[in-house]
Formats: sequence, structure tokens, C-alpha cells
Amino acid sequence: MKIDHQQAWELLCSMDRILLLTHRLPDGDALGSIFALYLVLKDLGKEVRCVTDKIPASLKAAAIPCDEPAFAPDFVVTVDVGDRKLLGEELDAQYGGRVDLCIDHHGTNSDFAKYTLVDPAAAAACEVLFDMLKGAGFAFTPAIAGELYVGIATDTGCFRYGNTTAKTMRAAADLMEYGVDTAYLNTEIFETKTREFTAFERMAMNALKTYFDGRVALMLITREMYERSGLDESDDKAINALPRQIEGVYVGITVKEKQDGQGFRVSMRSKEPVSAAEICASLGGGGHRLAAGCELTGTKEQAVETLLNAAKAVIDKVL
Amino acid sequence: MKIDHQQAWELLCSMDRILLLTHRLPDGDALGSIFALYLVLKDLGKEVRCVTDKIPASLKAAAIPCDEPAFAPDFVVTVDVGDRKLLGEELDAQYGGRVDLCIDHHGTNSDFAKYTLVDPAAAAACEVLFDMLKGAGFAFTPAIAGELYVGIATDTGCFRYGNTTAKTMRAAADLMEYGVDTAYLNTEIFETKTREFTAFERMAMNALKTYFDGRVALMLITREMYERSGLDESDDKAINALPRQIEGVYVGITVKEKQDGQGFRVSMRSKEPVSAAEICASLGGGGHRLAAGCELTGTKEQAVETLLNAAKAVIDKVL
Repeated sequence: MKIDHQQAWELLCSMDRILLLTHRLPDGDALGSIFALYLVLKDLGKEVRCVTDKIPASLKAAAIPCDEPAFAPDFVVTVDVGDRKLLGEELDAQYGGRVDLCIDHHGTNSDFAKYTLVDPAAAAACEVLFDMLKGAGFAFTPAIAGELYVGIATDTGCFRYGNTTAKTMRAAADLMEYGVDTAYLNTEIFETKTREFTAFERMAMNALKTYFDGRVALMLITREMYERSGLDESDDKAINALPRQIEGVYVGITVKEKQDGQGFRVSMRSKEPVSAAEICASLGGGGHRLAAGCELTGTKEQAVETLLNAAKAVIDKVL
Repeated sequence: MKIDHQQAWELLCSMDRILLLTHRLPDGDALGSIFALYLVLKDLGKEVRCVTDKIPASLKAAAIPCDEPAFAPDFVVTVDVGDRKLLGEELDAQYGGRVDLCIDHHGTNSDFAKYTLVDPAAAAACEVLFDMLKGAGFAFTPAIAGELYVGIATDTGCFRYGNTTAKTMRAAADLMEYGVDTAYLNTEIFETKTREFTAFERMAMNALKTYFDGRVALMLITREMYERSGLDESDDKAINALPRQIEGVYVGITVKEKQDGQGFRVSMRSKEPVSAAEICASLGGGGHRLAAGCELTGTKEQAVETLLNAAKAVIDKVL
């Protein structure tokens, strides 16, 4: 059942022994929203516990001490979770069918919980939480404001992406006034690279090649690059943005070799008027117009040739 | 003479045949503020002209058509200029001694103009202009709002740096509501690299080395890297941020070989508790605590050794 911000707040206030969950492979919004809500509920004197997957190295600044003894929850809340499957197999099996309240910002939310507060116009789950708390007249602490800022800043690429609205900017302004050290958080989150990522990025950049007068850039990421750099595959996402960043490139392709000869994962980004979704659809994949993906099998050479041909077919039509 | 926002606005409204100038090697705030003010004054029906140095490749999205025939100005205005020397020799000789109005945000403003509107709390000259125009009840067009957004976004590292205040965020929010395509501007300005810079960055990253258990990272930029990449020296600044970005690095050093064996320019960034200013001061340079610089002579090997010794001396004291 869909509920509004005030109803969600009243529900939270009336409950105790609350378990908070978020999606696996948590990003800044998942962690910011679960930790912010944890701190809010502790402030209200509740018994509360949060369970998260491993925190990525780049988000250590958002982590808070919240080791609480396990308890049988009376009320289960998810934040930033669009579908119960995203909880991961274990948590889905244990709690996916008994989520009481879901607080989210994905337009695709599958309405899996008993009560759902979802605002697809919000840039982040943290913006939904901010609206709820502000509407309730909650007294933000610097720590709570910091967690909400982290979620909003990360889901908007630090206020760069198209999901950033004037309302998002004003929410961030309010949070800054509650005493958040935004310069510190932004340095830790956006300006710091692990040694492993630095080594990986160097190898990836050396593997970057351009084609068709520089209109297509392709980076082939091999298993060896993960092994030599020591980078965990779950920390490799920032690399996908590199090929399209080059001036004149309309299609940026990152091809990642999967383990054990299982083929390739392809991330494709494009610039108007070229549609990455159209190119990927021609290869059995899909996605958004300017950011799509597909999977390929065969040898490295075959994968690259297939991708270049598919890109060229679309480029030749529109450029 | 210092004047306030309203006085500056009244002065502009009362004048005609206005020449606008900004500093040489213009950044996003210089261009955003000069083009915004140009459009405002054209809107008011004034005869107006702006003179700018070469527009960097990354800021082409901010450029507007403003070729106006030269005229003998009745009123000379500078934006984002802290001192007349920053106009460059030619413009300083011609106009430096007869600037009527200076609109700026540098606390170090040398008060070189007849009338000066300066707000050191503003993150950008564009924020000062925004405050002036908003106070005057000016009806922002999307183009004017876009120029002001560019200046604010670039001077704050897209709202990342410590100069970003809640007021800055609210100014950006207002500007977004006047119809700025912020996602497009941010992609063009922050996500696009020239081919030359991409090649240069690749070479620089391959030259990056770490020392003292990874606490110091140093990148030696040779003349050959400029020649091979084709990068103009004026477009190399973004490289200075790379060494300190690596996790665990307290001192990030970029050493750039000057032309014709004239030695080296050094850019140094540090993380607390290490002071880059202290290290650079020990080598005859200076700067801010976490971002400083110095110049060195001798061979490459000598320069690197000198820098590593100076960094180690400070690190050993505080780490």
C-alpha cells in the first residue's frame, strides 16, 4: 500500500524493535539512508539494528558504529530497495516476504512491502528521508545530516547528473546548515582512489583505443588486469565512464572479460544523437538511451569486432 | 571605493558604451561572469562589448556570440579580477588604470578600480552577480542563468570544495529553475577531456611513483609528454590533482619540466596533518596549507631527490 511521508513517519514513531535493510553491493545512497534512519530511530529511543553488505572502500567516511545485538524484529524497513531480490538471496529468503515499510525513490519500485513510501522525483532515497524528517519537524543532528548529504551527493554524481533538481539543491543547502563537513566528505568520497583502483585505471587507460576517426572509444578489460591490480570486481564501476569522456567520442565501450572464459560484460555510454540502447539492443542487450549494456561470448577479438560493427551501423545512420 | 550590490546595479543601469574585461587565462567563473553581464546589459539595451582571452576547450559550452565592433568605452567593468595585473600586460596597459567598476569575490582584491563590489564569502564572481541581479529583481533568462551556473559550478568543483556554502547551493537552485540544462553543461565541462589531455594523462599516470610506504606520490612531467600529446601547457592543470587522490597518500607532488632546461615547476597537495606549505616553504616556495608550490633547478634526478627529502622531513615530524 502506498503511503505518504507523514504516514511513514507516524508508522516509524509507533514501532519498536526495528530492523533496517538495504540493497546488496550498497552505494552511497543505500548506506546514507540506512545509517541516517538508524541514527534517527536511536534518537527516538528505539531498539534498532541495521544489516548491510560490505561497505566499499570509497564510502568508509559514511560508516558509523552500529553493531547491535541481533533481535527478532517487530518491524522490518528497507531503504533504497526497488525490489526484494536486490536484498540478496539470504536476506530476501529471510525477510523479503515480510518487509513492513519500504522507503525508496525508484519509479520501478515493485511494491513488495506492506507499506511503501516512494517518490520517483527524488534524486535519492536520502532525499525522500530528508523530506519526511523535515515535514515532521525533526531536529537534524550533524551526523544525521551528513549521512543524508552522502546519499544525495553520491546519487547525483555530486550534483552533476540530470536527476539533480532545484529541490535537491535546497535539501543539500539545508543539510549543510545542520553542520555537515561537506568538503571533507566530498574529498573522501569523490577524490580518493584506492591503490588497487589506481593501478587498474592505469592499465585500463593504456588499453583504451579509438576507432572511426575517434568517434568510438573501446577499452578491453582482461582478467589479468584484475589479478595484477588486486581490484575486486565490485569496485570497478568508475572505469565505465572513461571512454566516453574523450572529446569527439560518441560511443564509449568498456568490455570486461568474465571469469573462466564465460564471455564478456559490456558497458556502453553514448552521446546524442547516438543511442547506446539501440546498439546494445542489436546485440541482445538494452538499457537507457545513453547508458546501456549487453553480454557477449566468443574470443576477445570476436567480441571487439562485433561491438565495433554494431556501433558503426548505428553511427552511420545518425552522424 | 567599496560599494554594495545595489549601488553597483544602479551604476550599471545609469551607464552606456560599457566595456567588460576579465582576467587572462579565463576559467569558468571569468567567462560565466563576463558573458552573463554582457547578456544582462544587452537586455537593458546598452551598447556593450566584452574582450576575453582564448576560451579553453573544456569551456566551449559557455561561449556565446558576442562579436561587437570596437568602440571607445564610457565605462569599464572588470569581473572576477582581483588585481589589474591579472588582465594581462596589454589590457592592463590600456585599461588597468581606468577601471570604473570591479565586481569580484577575492578577499585579496587590491581595490584598483574606482568602484569595487567584492564579496569574499561568495564562492564565485557569478555568485556576486547573482546576488546583485536577484536583489534588483532582474528577470533572469535561461542563457543568463546558464552563464551564472557555469561560474558557480566551476569555481566550486561542481559543489565539492569547501567554498560551497548553503547560500551557494540555493543560488544554483534558483538558477536551475530559470531553465538551465545543468546536466548538459556539467557533462560538457566536467566529463569531457580533449584527446590531447587524454594522451597526456595516460603518460602522466604511467610516470606516477609512490614512496615511503605509499605516503608520497610523485609524478614527473617531462617536455616530451607535452610534445607527444600535443597538450598546451595552459591546459595541464587538472593533472595536479591526481597524485594526492590515491588512498594513503599524504603528499601528492607534480613536477613539471620547464622549457629549455630552465628547471621545474612544482605543484604539491597534501592531506592533514601534513602541510604542503611547510614542505614548499623549506624549498623557497609557499602557498596554502594543503596546496602549495615551488620552483627547482638542476637535473630531474636532483629535483626529485630534493622534493622527496623535503617531504620526508615534514612527514617524519607529524605522521
